[in-house]
Amino acid sequence: MGTPVVPDAWHRLATGRVARLATVGGAAEPHLVPCCFALDGLVAYSIVDDKPKRTTWLRRLADVAERPVATLLVDHYDEDWRQLWWVRAGGPARIAEAATEPPAHRRAAALLLAKYPQYVGHGLEGPVLMVELVRWRSWSAGGRGA
Amino acid sequence: MGTPVVPDAWHRLATGRVARLATVGGAAEPHLVPCCFALDGLVAYSIVDDKPKRTTWLRRLADVAERPVATLLVDHYDEDWRQLWWVRAGGPARIAEAATEPPAHRRAAALLLAKYPQYVGHGLEGPVLMVELVRWRSWSAGGRGA
Repeated sequence: MGTPVVPDAWHRLATGRVARLATVGGAAEPHLVPCCFALDGLVAYSIVDDKPKRTTWLRRLADVAERPVATLLVDHYDEDWRQLWWVRAGGPARIAEAATEPPAHRRAAALLLAKYPQYVGHGLEGPVLMVELVRWRSWSAGGRGA
Repeated sequence: MGTPVVPDAWHRLATGRVARLATVGGAAEPHLVPCCFALDGLVAYSIVDDKPKRTTWLRRLADVAERPVATLLVDHYDEDWRQLWWVRAGGPARIAEAATEPPAHRRAAALLLAKYPQYVGHGLEGPVLMVELVRWRSWSAGGRGA
């Protein structure tokens, strides 16, 4: 990672329906989970919603509390490998709670709700993970990577 | 991560066409890339093939050389969130070169070729990344996670 964002890569990331989120655990182990997310310029939001889950999300939050950095990946797989592409973006990460940062939390929840109608009727009160996307890298088999 | 593998999770991982591979970089940053892979029991193989690429794969190799651990994730996204699931597995990772470990390299290349006909006609001479899948975690919205 390291190149600045280009509009094509930003658009591919922004319109991705699912990203994979990587953080680093306490013992410098890589952790990884799929997540829904919404972009707000160069900030990515995801939220602890009320989908049934185990402790994974809480672990993300603990990881970020300890090592405030995260990476997101959106990719397209196709059996025709000429169609493959991916976009990766990452940088400083932190948690925003509804109680302590109401405006940021409200904005994140609104953007997530706008992107995912599935959130209607779900609780969007949980902690929001915010990632500043300062490092970008993209690739495509067709050579459009930047 | 931490629970042992269950057959259902193994099968979902094994039949996944694309995984996301996370490693940890020199500055304890999370790195993340999609990859094709094949399972051999509780070992995952992927290979530096000759798809056009930048330095990402080399970076994976450098990460693993420095911190010999990696995590793989296979997940299913669906707009019907009741269909969501994922399987994550990870553990010690290392590189096997064709020159120094011909049997291991040959086995990896054969399994990758068997899973992906797309590899026919591609060079499968590059370094193989081997990950021992000792830590498993899976989840599904339908509650079949283990």
